[in-house]
Amino acid sequence: MIIVLKSGITKKQEAGVLQEIRKRGYKPHVMRGVARTVVGAIGDELTHASLDTLATQFPNVVESVMPVQKRYKLVSREAHPANSTVKVRDQIIGGKKFQIMAGPCSVESEKQLLTTAVAVKAAGATILRGGAFKPRTSPYEFQGLGEKGLKLLAKARKETGLAIITELLSEHHAELIAEYTDIIQIGARNAQNFQLLIAAAKTGKPVLLKRGLSMKIEEWVLAGEYVLANNNSGLMFCERGIRTFETYTRNTLDLSTIPIIKKESHAPIVIDPSQGAGRADLVAAMCKGAVAMGADALLIEVHPNPAEAWSDGAQQVSLELFAQLMQELRPFIAAAGRE
Amino acid sequence: MIIVLKSGITKKQEAGVLQEIRKRGYKPHVMRGVARTVVGAIGDELTHASLDTLATQFPNVVESVMPVQKRYKLVSREAHPANSTVKVRDQIIGGKKFQIMAGPCSVESEKQLLTTAVAVKAAGATILRGGAFKPRTSPYEFQGLGEKGLKLLAKARKETGLAIITELLSEHHAELIAEYTDIIQIGARNAQNFQLLIAAAKTGKPVLLKRGLSMKIEEWVLAGEYVLANNNSGLMFCERGIRTFETYTRNTLDLSTIPIIKKESHAPIVIDPSQGAGRADLVAAMCKGAVAMGADALLIEVHPNPAEAWSDGAQQVSLELFAQLMQELRPFIAAAGRE
Amino acid sequence: MIIVLKSGITKKQEAGVLQEIRKRGYKPHVMRGVARTVVGAIGDELTHASLDTLATQFPNVVESVMPVQKRYKLVSREAHPANSTVKVRDQIIGGKKFQIMAGPCSVESEKQLLTTAVAVKAAGATILRGGAFKPRTSPYEFQGLGEKGLKLLAKARKETGLAIITELLSEHHAELIAEYTDIIQIGARNAQNFQLLIAAAKTGKPVLLKRGLSMKIEEWVLAGEYVLANNNSGLMFCERGIRTFETYTRNTLDLSTIPIIKKESHAPIVIDPSQGAGRADLVAAMCKGAVAMGADALLIEVHPNPAEAWSDGAQQVSLELFAQLMQELRPFIAAAGRE
Amino acid sequence: MIIVLKSGITKKQEAGVLQEIRKRGYKPHVMRGVARTVVGAIGDELTHASLDTLATQFPNVVESVMPVQKRYKLVSREAHPANSTVKVRDQIIGGKKFQIMAGPCSVESEKQLLTTAVAVKAAGATILRGGAFKPRTSPYEFQGLGEKGLKLLAKARKETGLAIITELLSEHHAELIAEYTDIIQIGARNAQNFQLLIAAAKTGKPVLLKRGLSMKIEEWVLAGEYVLANNNSGLMFCERGIRTFETYTRNTLDLSTIPIIKKESHAPIVIDPSQGAGRADLVAAMCKGAVAMGADALLIEVHPNPAEAWSDGAQQVSLELFAQLMQELRPFIAAAGRE
Repeated sequence: MIIVLKSGITKKQEAGVLQEIRKRGYKPHVMRGVARTVVGAIGDELTHASLDTLATQFPNVVESVMPVQKRYKLVSREAHPANSTVKVRDQIIGGKKFQIMAGPCSVESEKQLLTTAVAVKAAGATILRGGAFKPRTSPYEFQGLGEKGLKLLAKARKETGLAIITELLSEHHAELIAEYTDIIQIGARNAQNFQLLIAAAKTGKPVLLKRGLSMKIEEWVLAGEYVLANNNSGLMFCERGIRTFETYTRNTLDLSTIPIIKKESHAPIVIDPSQGAGRADLVAAMCKGAVAMGADALLIEVHPNPAEAWSDGAQQVSLELFAQLMQELRPFIAAAGRE
Repeated sequence: MIIVLKSGITKKQEAGVLQEIRKRGYKPHVMRGVARTVVGAIGDELTHASLDTLATQFPNVVESVMPVQKRYKLVSREAHPANSTVKVRDQIIGGKKFQIMAGPCSVESEKQLLTTAVAVKAAGATILRGGAFKPRTSPYEFQGLGEKGLKLLAKARKETGLAIITELLSEHHAELIAEYTDIIQIGARNAQNFQLLIAAAKTGKPVLLKRGLSMKIEEWVLAGEYVLANNNSGLMFCERGIRTFETYTRNTLDLSTIPIIKKESHAPIVIDPSQGAGRADLVAAMCKGAVAMGADALLIEVHPNPAEAWSDGAQQVSLELFAQLMQELRPFIAAAGRE
Repeated sequence: MIIVLKSGITKKQEAGVLQEIRKRGYKPHVMRGVARTVVGAIGDELTHASLDTLATQFPNVVESVMPVQKRYKLVSREAHPANSTVKVRDQIIGGKKFQIMAGPCSVESEKQLLTTAVAVKAAGATILRGGAFKPRTSPYEFQGLGEKGLKLLAKARKETGLAIITELLSEHHAELIAEYTDIIQIGARNAQNFQLLIAAAKTGKPVLLKRGLSMKIEEWVLAGEYVLANNNSGLMFCERGIRTFETYTRNTLDLSTIPIIKKESHAPIVIDPSQGAGRADLVAAMCKGAVAMGADALLIEVHPNPAEAWSDGAQQVSLELFAQLMQELRPFIAAAGRE
Repeated sequence: MIIVLKSGITKKQEAGVLQEIRKRGYKPHVMRGVARTVVGAIGDELTHASLDTLATQFPNVVESVMPVQKRYKLVSREAHPANSTVKVRDQIIGGKKFQIMAGPCSVESEKQLLTTAVAVKAAGATILRGGAFKPRTSPYEFQGLGEKGLKLLAKARKETGLAIITELLSEHHAELIAEYTDIIQIGARNAQNFQLLIAAAKTGKPVLLKRGLSMKIEEWVLAGEYVLANNNSGLMFCERGIRTFETYTRNTLDLSTIPIIKKESHAPIVIDPSQGAGRADLVAAMCKGAVAMGADALLIEVHPNPAEAWSDGAQQVSLELFAQLMQELRPFIAAAGRE
């Protein structure tokens, strides 16, 4: 910790701060600068009492307190210099092969799901997405098929061999969902629902952690730490757009997270352009950008008839557009050195 | 719904859209304007299929789709023109009397809690706040005393007569917390954790719903609808600051929510200046502003020794400052026509 | 400056950084912590070469660089511990008397302006606002009456004795506007148009500096430094709402700027609730909050017939509502210890 | 315009609104829906009086007013369905050839500029950037070499054949800058300084318009309309990052603007990854994303010795890294079907 003192303070005031720093287990180290005196508090910030409150306790003496250590451990690139990979059935996410996760926003019917599964597999997808429990802004909107939806996902997996990813909404469902799915998705609204993160981690299934709508990258990485700290190494990050002042798109997809997550962490990074744009007509361009910037996988909403989708129809692409998109991505995947 | 068509489309294209509108249960009503043709789709948006997807289904024909109805019902001022009030033990929130909820961020010990409770009561508070389960950005930070904290809150209530408010973090704890507390607090990070909202509502205890860090007012009011739609009329909204680009304060306290919530809903509005500012030195000014603008109550973090607080010390005010603040608020409470 | 080094670096790498720090004129001071080594660079950051680039120059060695000095001088509270006041004709802004600036968004006609001027004076305003040159998002919108508008403002001043405030848009108009007005207003869109700030400062007239739509408080205070550094001590800050994700209001009025500007600077702080809300029905509550929180003045848009205003009609209050608002503010002005 | 009326209003109230709509030159068209009555106001919104104020004028009758026309004309894709191109000396921006603009943040010396110019040309750049007048947050920071810088840019052009782009800060400098430069750059802080936009447009030189820090896409396109409406068809848009809550990067580069500008307008779109990230280590990934998503050009800050740059050193890449980046971009440029 670095403690910046105000200008014009007395020796006695300074001594009081130094004493408090010692009391909390740090060794103070004083540097007298030209305009300010700065104190380095030597000690491990992850194990000692915080010094954040010094500015409150000594409002006329302490100007600011700045941490020098990062707050995350297991999830950091320092802790695990090589890329980590996540194995899902016979597929590896985070390796040489670029992976495509695709499927409908919500599971609606056997026909809808199987049609989609067969088509996305034919076009090149390896993982099938589909929501069985849906978080909806209004209590009067369709909330998902529940366990019936999970059973349809399992059936689609059996028939196509695709792995399954679906969202976990409630701690009460953690075991139920783990029974059916290959990857547990934590949605943006629950990205700092730490109890749910712990429940997901404890199932042992890989966890895809979406970024919250207004989550700083440091907070997102720390939420990932909750997964690793609960003995689950199958963490993947998924950028899906943040909330900004712009209203043309539903969210602002922050593709800079790709190089940043690669720098800060070892976990794979997945991009969800459907939520990011909220508009099917922008999905293709965003997929190309994500591939070029080094993402490990895409998560795309695909529906046999987007116009009749029970949720978020405006952002789902049709089977035809999806097949065309897979073709268009090929040269970019090659240019990025992936398969 | 209003559907704006693109300029230069053919009669046949227009007819296709009209047919689709009818198919979804609405009666289309065409208005030919100077630059655009606009279609009104007549039917109840809360019960019919959504028309949101028309722009996706007819990308060359439909320019935009705009709703004309509000999405919330029970929570709206229209549904209940008078102010609703929430009774907590012998206190009424939302009535003539301005209420003060105060106490530590986290319950840390019997001594800390009881000292605070006695002091805030003496200064004028009627409700005691204190966290027993704490949501923390890092898994390595203090997570609260749990049930032991709840027992200390109950003891403080017994000794002082103050009502209790504490946060619910996990669906698994809903019954446990309801057993001890008088008001259930839903924190900002869980404001769209709809399963938790339903669990809280079902306990029958009053629910104080904090605004999420990046929650639009419409979404916040809709989250409140989850409480009322689950047969709990004890809803209160609590503004605690939103996340913006500004870093001087931890969050940007949006005091305009006071007149807006009063306009849109009948439920009481509470202001939390401690989270809003993240700095004890700004709390007093924010409390005065909240009172003047018509808030029903304040939720203030108070600690006997903020410098030694186990969480968020920088934003908690001392017992002395709290007592002084209560004095300073009196003329503003009077000016606002409250007691 | 504080330079945080990465963990696991060699002695030689560290020596390279220390040498570079010395080369740029600072004395390095090394603190070896438990997890990190931190270097304090002693020297005046306002006069020496910046060390910001160390992280770029030594990407494998330097983790981060943090400044310890504030970047503003003349405008800071440290430089001038007492409140500064601005004298405008016979009125003082920033003193005991709470000041009201009111008038139409745009000057439209002699009748419109004089009617408003007489009415706002009768209700208690001391300064008349009115735009003669208007910044409009679209080139096809009304751009103001120009010099004709300035002449009408001068006439209104002569007839009522009210001081005048009007906006400066173009460097070419600085002298022209200074000839007519008592206070020069710099609008939000030009808050970092430094050439315009310098031109305004050089006229010698008081300058009211609005906060930019996405301006951090530090940047705003630094923009104010441009005024003082050009030998003009008549600086006033004016908060008018920042741009956030919320769309219910046009902007989010950040009332926390009142105690913050009072803490960081000595200049008066004025609140503009009309731009802040973009809705006349929220103006009254915001004015009350601003008064209670310690603002020095209000800047309110008033129009004899808002429905027919040539610009921003939705946010202008009528003469009747303004008179009523002035009455309602009285108890809050008294509670705040102002006249 | 669409006017949504409140529920439960009387016939007389409705008639008053209809009369007002007629008075302003529109023909009202009433649609009685299930929950609301909606009025379409038929007439050209670009030429008639605005109806925005109806909600203020009839607060108990009118719920909301929604525009149905876009506010921009000349700059819209509708007005000019083909892509427009900008010719700068012998280069075309917006055509088949992908263009690179590169050079230092500030022009510092002849040696610095010529070294950079020769190197970026060798690596593939066709346009040389360099700031002679710099907008700086603090008045105490380096403000640029001024006309001396312009002369150095002209010299570099003469020696290398590269075209020149430099920023215009002041209306007073429009003619001076036009005399030297091939493209006038309008910076983010001046993106809504309409007087400067007009002055730039009137020089007849191509104008590269950066997006403001908190500018909505609609506002940005409308600012571009100021250029075209002043008889200058050489408009280019340049995305350089928007301000959000994230602090890891200096700004959030919004790459979705590439497909959006292509959809809404015919003008070329340029990406500036240096300002967007504020960190040299993220520039390469962002360039790849921009190419893949369909940008027409890149604007990259390059410096022979970033560590000694007089401004923004942290975001400038070295000559070596730039040459390497140009190599890495080749496969992506090919995949995007560009040269």
